Parts: sequence; structure tokens; C-alpha cells
Amino acid sequence: MVLSLELIKEITRPSSTKIVLLVIDGLGGLPNPKTNKTELEIAKTPNLDKLVAKGICGLIEPVSPGITPGSAPGHLALFGYDPIRFNIGRGVLEAIGVDFDLQLNDVAARGNFCTADEMGMITDRRAGRISTEKCTELCRFLDGQVINDVKILVRPVKEHRFIAVFRGDGLAPEVSDSDPQQIGVAPKSVTILSSEAGKMADTANQFIANATGILAEYHPANMLLLRGFSRRPQFPTMGEVYKLKPAAIASYPMYRGLAKLVGMEILETGANIEDEFTTLKQRYADYDFFFLHIKGTDAAGEDSDFGRKVAVIEQIDSALPELVSLEPDVVVVTGDHSTPVLLAGHSWHPVPILLYSKWCRTDKVKEFSESACVSGGLGRFPGVQVMLLAMANALKLTKFGA
Amino acid sequence: MVLSLELIKEITRPSSTKIVLLVIDGLGGLPNPKTNKTELEIAKTPNLDKLVAKGICGLIEPVSPGITPGSAPGHLALFGYDPIRFNIGRGVLEAIGVDFDLQLNDVAARGNFCTADEMGMITDRRAGRISTEKCTELCRFLDGQVINDVKILVRPVKEHRFIAVFRGDGLAPEVSDSDPQQIGVAPKSVTILSSEAGKMADTANQFIANATGILAEYHPANMLLLRGFSRRPQFPTMGEVYKLKPAAIASYPMYRGLAKLVGMEILETGANIEDEFTTLKQRYADYDFFFLHIKGTDAAGEDSDFGRKVAVIEQIDSALPELVSLEPDVVVVTGDHSTPVLLAGHSWHPVPILLYSKWCRTDKVKEFSESACVSGGLGRFPGVQVMLLAMANALKLTKFGA
Repeated sequence: MVLSLELIKEITRPSSTKIVLLVIDGLGGLPNPKTNKTELEIAKTPNLDKLVAKGICGLIEPVSPGITPGSAPGHLALFGYDPIRFNIGRGVLEAIGVDFDLQLNDVAARGNFCTADEMGMITDRRAGRISTEKCTELCRFLDGQVINDVKILVRPVKEHRFIAVFRGDGLAPEVSDSDPQQIGVAPKSVTILSSEAGKMADTANQFIANATGILAEYHPANMLLLRGFSRRPQFPTMGEVYKLKPAAIASYPMYRGLAKLVGMEILETGANIEDEFTTLKQRYADYDFFFLHIKGTDAAGEDSDFGRKVAVIEQIDSALPELVSLEPDVVVVTGDHSTPVLLAGHSWHPVPILLYSKWCRTDKVKEFSESACVSGGLGRFPGVQVMLLAMANALKLTKFGA
Repeated sequence: MVLSLELIKEITRPSSTKIVLLVIDGLGGLPNPKTNKTELEIAKTPNLDKLVAKGICGLIEPVSPGITPGSAPGHLALFGYDPIRFNIGRGVLEAIGVDFDLQLNDVAARGNFCTADEMGMITDRRAGRISTEKCTELCRFLDGQVINDVKILVRPVKEHRFIAVFRGDGLAPEVSDSDPQQIGVAPKSVTILSSEAGKMADTANQFIANATGILAEYHPANMLLLRGFSRRPQFPTMGEVYKLKPAAIASYPMYRGLAKLVGMEILETGANIEDEFTTLKQRYADYDFFFLHIKGTDAAGEDSDFGRKVAVIEQIDSALPELVSLEPDVVVVTGDHSTPVLLAGHSWHPVPILLYSKWCRTDKVKEFSESACVSGGLGRFPGVQVMLLAMANALKLTKFGA
């Protein structure tokens, strides 16, 4: 059962207790066929294991069994937002990912530079994955146009990927993609999906036409495709719903952006794991909820680097005593999804979770690993319920019902 | 996934098998730091353990992970009613709790006697917790008024708490509380929350004005606050939904009242645990579903009395053979929520459950305890699903779908 945020709001209460949510991105793995052990099982994690012995463990399903979450649903679930109900458009997510300061009325689209033949048919949807430098140069040619009184801001993301942000009055994001998601056909015209979206569609189509002219001489990146037109969603904040004063410590823009969307304050931090833990220590007095995000595990998983993923986990373990010494009332350690080295990408496998509090009802699990967590006292449960468990263990929830 | 009662109704069938649901109120606990064992783990329960060896175990989440249920949601879930959908107002629950015979059109409110200063500002929302005797006396002064042709019945509950029941035509319960839930301010006027509630609001406000005059000389109980205006809900009965002939054996009015709301017959019983088991034996031939409620465990938990909670559990265990000798087709033993002695109140922790039937697919659990139930064959599941499991094991459900 997923309680609505409206209902949760009625039972949350502010208190002086503190919660630290440590998200080890892509934490879960798969056993290496040689050793029959996962990344987490190979890693030496004496400090995590010490916390496990005092805490309670289990496995979370970030979205639902079998579902491989993107970064947004995985994190939204951990923040207590039903990832199926709370959706973030592709354009907005890309904008967040490059730290673009999206205004409330902006409409953002994800863009691809692509290759077209002389008939205008798409031959490569990624323009041969041009370099990020090339992408940056092309974006500069397209940036700053004004069409229908709408200013269009174009920023590079990575390789062939960029964002186009439309800023002006009278726009609505309900328009179709120009990206047909296949080759051998022409890009589609952007069409309205609601009666308010006329100006948006026209502006996008004019922008695409201008761009086609400008890019003509830059083969293989001689055309562009837009998709995922969307506006920054206005979610109820964690302050409103959970009555927390939450802060985020994350070295990647995407995760800072997701945290900002749910109303967390973003703390300045160095990029290393040690830096992030130091930031936690320095700002510990100022907030009662901390989201501490570690990216390296996911990156190593995506790069299929078993040894590096193990090393990052061990590095987190070494930094853990600094967190524990702050004596948070509740510590949660988990991931937003699994990123098994064997699959070199996100996966659907449930993610180990460890929760420590004075009131957690310890189980018999003695080490932090996928196989040990199977028999943990928390069982296997939806990621969206983590936040309520953390809140309950911090004694921040009142009784439900009379 | 929660099946709707309409859907459940389509697959239930009457049969001669019998189910006994033994609810040990507040059963779940937390380990005592000295022994590292919970109340249930310390208690000697040879008879429960014998049943565990033949049965299947698990843990239930009465409402949802992290949620601490009040008595009503905890029990409604066990009776198979989604506790988020089936709500009982505070006024109605209090009325039920004092065995007040609520009519279908009555609107009940929960009342507090409170203290106000000479400016009419609330200085103590509980009037210094006056004695129940004093409360009874004051209720008599207020009882029986007729305003707008509406009769107002006022009954004491405990200490500063009472109920005010409004009986008459043209009332609707959709009005706001007069209780501002804080001190230093004046009580709020009761306002309409639906267009039908004008008479209700006016009657309540006149009643409060009269009461303020009557109570003026009874400092510290010189004012009153009303909240939770509500009407007795009309739930589909267990007879309709489950095609059962259900009976309740409970020594506290609150639980008899909850059972009545879902259509159980209330059996006369003595107040002791032994009395309740004797009632079960005497009336065993007359019904096919029994809800047997034991209050002492919850009361001991709330009073933070570890030894007493252990003793009550052992007393239940001693009485159990009487129940088992009746050879019910299905026996379920669980609680409506946890009430750990360490927290001296209801908590969010999942509750051990034991289900015995000839068809239960026994697991390896050998003792009835929080830690053993973690690895039970039932896993960890929502309380609202208990009833379907019991019905299935009693072979009272037909196939779902073709």
C-alpha cells in the first residue's frame, strides 16, 4: 500500500532527531561467475558490517519487481515520492543534469544532433556520436534565437546530446516529439497535444527549420531531433510533507537537481567521497535530514569495472565511521537501483538496504550483501516506503487513525 | 495489491469450516537491552510453539511499513477492510469505546474539558486532567439540551474526555473542529465543510456557547473543545462480503464496537482471558468465524510493564489448548499492531502472525517470536490480506478468474 503524500502530511511531526540517507548509486550487483560473489560481497566492509549487526536489513524494489529504474524514479522513490505518479520529463531531467537553472515556465526538450541524407532522411540518430567539444560548438550556433518572442537557450550535454530550453509567455509543454526514434525516415513535425500548445509547436518547428539551415554544412551533425518537451514539475516539498529541513550532498548535478525538485537545500561540497562526508560533518548541525549521494559505484558498474566498483564500496566503508560518529538517530544505507558490472548498466535487481536506529528491532544479518539481506528483518519491500520507515524510526510520525 | 470487497464477495462461498482469529492486542515488541529478547521471546509459550510447528508464520504490516496504527485501522485491516479506505471518525470511535448505542443519523464528537483564562484563551487543553468522577458530574450538567430540535447527549469517557452526540433531523457531520489543538488561543467557531452542514454547525456553536456559561464556575474545567464530528459508517458486513456468520468475544467496548461495525455478533463474556476462551467453547457450534480479542498485552505495553506483558502472553498460552481442542479448521494468532514496552505505546513494527490449517504449507519456524517469524513462510505482508489467507485455508474461496 502506498500512502498518499496528503495522508503522510497529516501524521508527520517535526522533532530534533536526525536522519542520514546514504545512497550508493547502483549499489546492487550480480555474482562474478568465477568467485560466485557480487561486488558488495567481495568488498571488505567492516564498518558497514558493524552497522548491520546493530541494524535491520532487507532488499528494496526501487519501483516494482522487474522494473529497471532510471536515476529519477530510483531517487524519487527513496525520497518518498511514488515514482509512478511523480514523473519528470526527459527534457527537464537533461536540463537538471547539466545544472541548467530552469525557470518555472520554461519548456525544456532533449535534443540529439543527427545525420540526414540529401533527401532529409535520418541515417544516424546520433550523428556518429560527435565529440562533446563539437556539440558545444554547434550549440553556440543555435543558442539565443528569438522566435515568436520566445528565447531559445541551447546547451550541450554530452557527445551528440543537448538541451533546448524555450523561454517566453504562452508556451505549453504538451507537444509531440520531432524524433521519430528510427532511421530511414524524415524527422516529424512537432504537433500539439493540447489546445494551449499552438505557440509551443510553432516555435519548435521554426527553431528546427532554422537549425536545419544552420547545420547543413556540419555533416555528420547536419540535423537535430527534439523529444521530451516538459516543464519543471512542482512537487510538494519534503519540508511540507515530512516537516523536515533536508539537505543534499551530491557531487553530480543530476542528483542535486532531483534533490532541489523535492525542496532540499543543496550544500556546497568537494567531489570526492571523503569531501562529501566532510561536508556532512561540517553542516550536520544545520539540518535534520541529509541525502548523501555517491556516484562512483554506478559509474564503475556502467563501465563494467568490477575492481573499481569494489574499490569505491571499500572507500565508502572507510569513510563511514565519520558519519557514525555524528550519532544520527537514523542511518539508512542503500542504492537507487542495481548496476551489476556483468550487465554494464542499471538493472531491475532489488537493492540491499540497511537501517540503523535505536528502535529498529535488529535482525540476525551480520554482513551487508545481497545474499545476506535476503533474510533480513525488513524483507523485500518497495523503495517508496523507505522514507516512512526512516521517519518512524526517528519518531517523527504520529499514530494513523483513531 | 488490495482486492476490493466487491471483488472478494464474488469469490467467497459459505462452508461448514470454522476460523478462529485470536488477536493479542499490541503483541509485537522490542528486545529488552539486557536480555536482547522481546516480551514474546521471553515468555514461555509451549502451546503456541506447538501450533507454530504445525503452522506457517510471518510478519504483518498492519497498515504499511513505518505506520503506527490506532486501534481502529489495526483491527479493520485484520477483518479484511483496507484501513486507508475504511475510516472511522474520532467522535464515533470514542462513542463506540464507551458502548454508546449510536444511531445511524447521530453525529458524535469527541470532547475535551479545558481551562480558559479570563480572556477566553485556552491555557490547558486537558483541564489539568480532571478525574473521571468530575468529568461525569460536568457531563450531567450539559446532557440533554435541545437546540434547533436536536437533542445533545453528553457522556463521560475518562478524565477530561467525553462525547457529545447530536441527535435530530437535518444534521451532517462535515463541520470543522472547535479544538484549535494549541494553547494561548481561543476555541475556534465550528464551520461548515459542506453545504448540508449548516444546522450541524449552528447547533454545535450554540451548544458550546451554552456550555461555556454553564462551566464558567468550574475552573479548571471552565470550557470545552469538540473535534472529530462523525457519523457511524456503514461498512459492508462480513456476512455479505465473506459469507460468514461471525462472532466477537472481547471484554473491552471499543473492540466490540469495531466488530459490530463490520457486522459481527457480540457475545456475552466474562472479562478474564479464561472467561473469553470459555465463551468460545460454549458458543463454538453457533458461528463459523470467531474474533477473540485479548487486551492485556497492549495495556501492559502502554504501561511499560515488561513482566506483565510476558505474564499475559503466558496466560494466553495456557488457555490455548482449550481453543485447539475445538479443532478449528483455521487458527490465526496475531496482533493489531506492536506495543513495545520500550516505547510505552503503539508502534510501527510488524507483528508476528501464526496461521494453522491442514492446508497451510508448514514452514521451518519452531517458535512464536518476532525474530523467528522473519524467516517464516508467509514473509512480511499487509494486515488486510490476513482475512483472505484465513478464508483460503478454510477452503471458503473459489477460483479467481477463468
